[in-house]
Amino acid sequence: MDKEEDGGVNHGDEVQDIENKGALDGKEEIGRYWSDISDQNPAFAEPLLSRRTNITSQIAIVGANLCPIESLDYELFENQIFKQDWRSRRKVQIVQYVILKWLFALIIGLGTGLVGVFNSLAVENIAGSKLLLTTSLMTKEKYYEAFMVYALSNMALAAAAGALCAFIAPAAAGSGIPEVKAYLNGVDAHSILAPSTLFVKIFGSILGVSAGFVVGKEGPMVHTGACIASLLGQGGSRKYGLTWTWLRYFKNDRDRRDMITCGAAAGVASAFRAPLGGVLFALEEAASWWRSALLWRTFFTTAVVAIVLRSSIQFCSTGKCGLFGKGGLIMYDVGSYKVSYSGADLIAVLILGTIGGILGSIYNYLVDKVVRTYSIINEKGATFKILLVISISLLTSCCYFLLPWIAPCTVCPADVTCPSVDESGEFKRFQCPPGSYNALASLFLNTNDDAIRVLINSTQFHMFSLFIFFATVFFIGIVTYGIAIPSGLFIPVILAGAAYGRIVGRIFEPIVTLDIGFFALLGAASFLGGTMRMTVSICVILLELTNDLLLLPLVMLVLLISKTVADGFNKGVYDQILHIKGLPYLEAHAEPYMRNLVAGDVVTGPLVTFSGIERVGNIIHALKTTGHNGFPVIDEPPFSDSAELCGLVLKSHLLVLLKGKNFSSERVLAGQSTFQKISKFDFAKAGLGKGIKLEDLDIQEEEMDMYVDLHPIINASPYTVVETMSLAKAAILFRQLGLRHMCVVPKSQGRPPVVGILTRHDFMPEHVLGLYPDLKSHKWD
Amino acid sequence: MDKEEDGGVNHGDEVQDIENKGALDGKEEIGRYWSDISDQNPAFAEPLLSRRTNITSQIAIVGANLCPIESLDYELFENQIFKQDWRSRRKVQIVQYVILKWLFALIIGLGTGLVGVFNSLAVENIAGSKLLLTTSLMTKEKYYEAFMVYALSNMALAAAAGALCAFIAPAAAGSGIPEVKAYLNGVDAHSILAPSTLFVKIFGSILGVSAGFVVGKEGPMVHTGACIASLLGQGGSRKYGLTWTWLRYFKNDRDRRDMITCGAAAGVASAFRAPLGGVLFALEEAASWWRSALLWRTFFTTAVVAIVLRSSIQFCSTGKCGLFGKGGLIMYDVGSYKVSYSGADLIAVLILGTIGGILGSIYNYLVDKVVRTYSIINEKGATFKILLVISISLLTSCCYFLLPWIAPCTVCPADVTCPSVDESGEFKRFQCPPGSYNALASLFLNTNDDAIRVLINSTQFHMFSLFIFFATVFFIGIVTYGIAIPSGLFIPVILAGAAYGRIVGRIFEPIVTLDIGFFALLGAASFLGGTMRMTVSICVILLELTNDLLLLPLVMLVLLISKTVADGFNKGVYDQILHIKGLPYLEAHAEPYMRNLVAGDVVTGPLVTFSGIERVGNIIHALKTTGHNGFPVIDEPPFSDSAELCGLVLKSHLLVLLKGKNFSSERVLAGQSTFQKISKFDFAKAGLGKGIKLEDLDIQEEEMDMYVDLHPIINASPYTVVETMSLAKAAILFRQLGLRHMCVVPKSQGRPPVVGILTRHDFMPEHVLGLYPDLKSHKWD
Repeated sequence: MDKEEDGGVNHGDEVQDIENKGALDGKEEIGRYWSDISDQNPAFAEPLLSRRTNITSQIAIVGANLCPIESLDYELFENQIFKQDWRSRRKVQIVQYVILKWLFALIIGLGTGLVGVFNSLAVENIAGSKLLLTTSLMTKEKYYEAFMVYALSNMALAAAAGALCAFIAPAAAGSGIPEVKAYLNGVDAHSILAPSTLFVKIFGSILGVSAGFVVGKEGPMVHTGACIASLLGQGGSRKYGLTWTWLRYFKNDRDRRDMITCGAAAGVASAFRAPLGGVLFALEEAASWWRSALLWRTFFTTAVVAIVLRSSIQFCSTGKCGLFGKGGLIMYDVGSYKVSYSGADLIAVLILGTIGGILGSIYNYLVDKVVRTYSIINEKGATFKILLVISISLLTSCCYFLLPWIAPCTVCPADVTCPSVDESGEFKRFQCPPGSYNALASLFLNTNDDAIRVLINSTQFHMFSLFIFFATVFFIGIVTYGIAIPSGLFIPVILAGAAYGRIVGRIFEPIVTLDIGFFALLGAASFLGGTMRMTVSICVILLELTNDLLLLPLVMLVLLISKTVADGFNKGVYDQILHIKGLPYLEAHAEPYMRNLVAGDVVTGPLVTFSGIERVGNIIHALKTTGHNGFPVIDEPPFSDSAELCGLVLKSHLLVLLKGKNFSSERVLAGQSTFQKISKFDFAKAGLGKGIKLEDLDIQEEEMDMYVDLHPIINASPYTVVETMSLAKAAILFRQLGLRHMCVVPKSQGRPPVVGILTRHDFMPEHVLGLYPDLKSHKWD
Repeated sequence: MDKEEDGGVNHGDEVQDIENKGALDGKEEIGRYWSDISDQNPAFAEPLLSRRTNITSQIAIVGANLCPIESLDYELFENQIFKQDWRSRRKVQIVQYVILKWLFALIIGLGTGLVGVFNSLAVENIAGSKLLLTTSLMTKEKYYEAFMVYALSNMALAAAAGALCAFIAPAAAGSGIPEVKAYLNGVDAHSILAPSTLFVKIFGSILGVSAGFVVGKEGPMVHTGACIASLLGQGGSRKYGLTWTWLRYFKNDRDRRDMITCGAAAGVASAFRAPLGGVLFALEEAASWWRSALLWRTFFTTAVVAIVLRSSIQFCSTGKCGLFGKGGLIMYDVGSYKVSYSGADLIAVLILGTIGGILGSIYNYLVDKVVRTYSIINEKGATFKILLVISISLLTSCCYFLLPWIAPCTVCPADVTCPSVDESGEFKRFQCPPGSYNALASLFLNTNDDAIRVLINSTQFHMFSLFIFFATVFFIGIVTYGIAIPSGLFIPVILAGAAYGRIVGRIFEPIVTLDIGFFALLGAASFLGGTMRMTVSICVILLELTNDLLLLPLVMLVLLISKTVADGFNKGVYDQILHIKGLPYLEAHAEPYMRNLVAGDVVTGPLVTFSGIERVGNIIHALKTTGHNGFPVIDEPPFSDSAELCGLVLKSHLLVLLKGKNFSSERVLAGQSTFQKISKFDFAKAGLGKGIKLEDLDIQEEEMDMYVDLHPIINASPYTVVETMSLAKAAILFRQLGLRHMCVVPKSQGRPPVVGILTRHDFMPEHVLGLYPDLKSHKWD
């Protein structure tokens, strides 16, 4: 639904009251505060500036020891040092910058592509060996031993994956797509793109998928791609002396954002061998900001991934990659489908899409409940995390090994190569006599990729087997998400969806003309649409997987229906996980009740401002007593005719400036001396936890009474809104420009030139509704 | 290149001087002006408020009688009447709105799809009959008669197309893509989406393509889709009493923008049978603003188009569509290509891409020159336009008919069905003996679609024939664009590119392993990349045309190379045409020199403001003497504590308010009476030329001294920037939010609460460089 445009909720007459109240409150508060500040009380005697407590924000509903979340700053910070640096850049440096950025895209593509190949190779070989051993024991009728081998190897792999996640990088658990999405929205959760996370994501994902869990490697690949991009974006390492001048141009959130968008696209491209799908995934789901230059760059990155994958497939087709065969990088060949259809087919497809949407939203609902439950267990410590992983592994092993026993044997038809003794192929004999196979075993005792291939291609399943399989993967898929291993959601959803699609196809078999394998594909599409709520990117991914564009109209139709139906019930699964994790994600549209508020209404707490030339002690005190990251600077007579908004300074820049100790005992402008002492690169955004901290400063007592000229580091072009700006419009402005701070200026004369600062948290529904609880009761009118 | 981020041009030290000068000028001007206004001189005695002349803008370099260009207003205009209406909307109305918007998308898809089918049917039948007749005369060796039939029928069709364009809708000439692009950027050129334009676009395109011009129907289809969407967006017609309450919700620029984006996507989808290509075209090339909801809606629209096309092809495959065969809707089957490649292939492809990029930029350069030359002829009147069309038609006929005579005859190979007497097939015998065919005639005496198919599929061309064909379509394609017929650029570029690709393929034949038909495809890609500078959408369109995703990596590579190379020389062809037509298109990035200016520097001319309760006479005078569309409103004591910015009113809203005549003789607030007299729908944006005009008002002399309360129509949330905001950042803000007016507020106390208004023209390079010519000389440092 287009909340931005419609979302008309009738708030009745009391709206006017609220507005007046808000305005009055605002005025009073500001007035009171201003008298405090304008006294220039140097020591801020009272603890007036206590950090605004975020009790109303959505931080950490789950994962209480999720570390402090920082906002990212995508604004061009135009201060004098930036401008000086920009003017001094020569043509050659600009060319260098552009070439480097493309080179980075190339490296991201190569890296993600190679990781994708490695991942597939490893999974195919580990899982393949395990399944071969089990199958060969089954053939010798050593059923008990087969189960032990199967369950124990699964458990060992699972425990290893869980241990990696629990001890080395807890942030690597789960899909990773919500975190990447949040990062690109401007939320920097702790260590989400750290090197350790990358390491665990790659190996944890290999172990987890090999352990036979109902998880995919797709989400983790997206996270992996983003991590690789982020590492490059750090621009070398000061610790190891690996800094080149030109790399430092990339040490800012803007450039990193671009690279991480490329990384996310490369991840999808690498997981599905779908370069276009990758670009569209980045556009539709991952990115919050998009420029046409980015389209081109992600496109290049995924093209590189595609070339890497094709080369490696050509290499592996010579048999040098062990058990890695056709199945390694998913590709379903469906060239043989009939794609002409009649009215009856359309009705069947409509029903399939509708029920798929409902099942998808049920899937989301249950995942939400399960994740919330698990988070209670996971919070108790690493041991509990691993125990949970092991128990789910056991559950999966039991279901997968025991359920095939209740399936009937199917006699091999003439055109299917039937399972022989040491067969790693798609059809498993299990306990069946030679010349027949067990349909359920063929689905369960295979890698997930192979199971999907079996579902989409062949036509040999009993309704009963299909139903058992569907119910099993549906519920095991749900209980698996949330345990401490890297776990993608695409594969479980596709598996359950394909089984569901076949069931629908079987039901409608008497009246439809479409191939039943095509129904499996449509079922997968309907589930994907119902859970993830993407349309274009899923459509393209499915088409790239199946390499047949003639399927397009029906796949599009199913996706649209299932998304529409599911949107009526709840949010997409990634949005739910974002919410559970407490990441303050800014939506692209404003909530309806925001139209009844103005920007001034949500400005709370006292504002801390600095003078253009400020006492060092004041700055230190403000930094100590507040958690603010941005401070407006106001020039006053004699430095200007009247009090005027000079701009905004950032905490990190203040720390660099203070460290430079370019102090003077008088209130005078610093002139060129600052530029000589500090270069632009001192302000480059440092990697995780490497920036200057307040404790690192060594300010003497006598220096506290000296003055420092802030002008060189002031962003003279902060984005501003008038206090009477509708909150809805301010929210859209904030989100579209990717801001971290937005100054609120007064609408009338005779007031201080800035009356407040809006940050991400001020737009969070929890914050706004916390301030105006009356709005809440009308929210669902 | 990422101009937004890098583009560092060294402006040296004089930058500081300019900034100071700008700031001083601004202050003086504003100060002087303010004293005028604050005197409240009621009649504005001097003609102070003369419209700022746009001598520095790029209006109408070509097409001097291009009518006044209006900006579109994509801002949510939150005035009291809007809010009142929004609060009174009930759930059912919102649901109605959403359903209607989807219904419109459906209708746009159906309409554009059906027009596409009709178009193809008509072209295939008209051009087919013409070519059949010519070929049969040739077979009877009546060469002279054949030429006369060919040339005269071409000329008649061309003259008809030219007459339609010249007399009924001059705006329908050309591709239409630049105009749609400009509309979506916020520029409303006169009658560009009018019903007459739609009519001429459809029939003119059919006649033009049938006349054998080297033009395509793709650009015109995009324009057609946009016109259909715009007609729906008008929301009924007051003239014929066809207005429903709920249709009026769509009478605003925001909703129309969404629909026209869908229409543009549907046009591409319909022209190429490429639904995904359509979505990506809209995203990459057409749209300036994009929301994820739009992705979904365009996707739906193009899915509808795809279904319409498939149904019609199924219907026509039964032979009920006359000469409309496989060729009607382009689809090249290349399933047989080998797609494994070696290093030598890659080198060949790199060379192909590079030269393709250079040739593409030469193409753009020549098109630019030709269009500028033609515009001199076209301006002389309709007769000259038609004469130009006829002469180009004659030139084309001569080249196409006479050049095959110099081509050698080729003996039919065993696997090709050779031309028989009444053959409408792809290979033409021309003057050759039976059992052989003329390769050039097969290319020239076919529809353009068939010629492309021949180039991409078969392998039977002499180098000489290929070269003649390439040179001919390259130059005739260039001289054809700019004449007064609807003419798409895709087909000429694909034709020339495919011929070029085959030539390169022939040259490298000894060392490469790739199919030569695939080289033709890559050649087409390189030309498209070199002229249009799109990457992702062209890639997807080519893949959808050829239905083989395995070609993807090489096509991507070629597109990236050719675009990069061509970008080094000049702009994309659509951007060039935009510039020639003088449409003030806002780029997504700011020009480098804008970083040296602040918003206050480009604010020129006196500002016209109103009081919250203003004298009618003042308003009438301001509307008469200025061409402004937006006026800031400033409340002053006793209505507020001090002068404060109340918001912005639009000219169109003022006219509605004045027409309502809710005047009072005292300066008092109007209260609820305004709401009773005027509903939100009176403010709905009227269709072309149907709004209230100043002359329509019938204000008596005594009413001139009365007062009117502007508060109900004031947008209380205008977007503002502080005067010290860097112009580059202001430009990006303006463009990203799709604004029409942006208020500039002062940075200090004691100044009027608004010091200027920025509009689209203030960001045009011509305007900025006109104000600061010094910057110009540094532009290319």
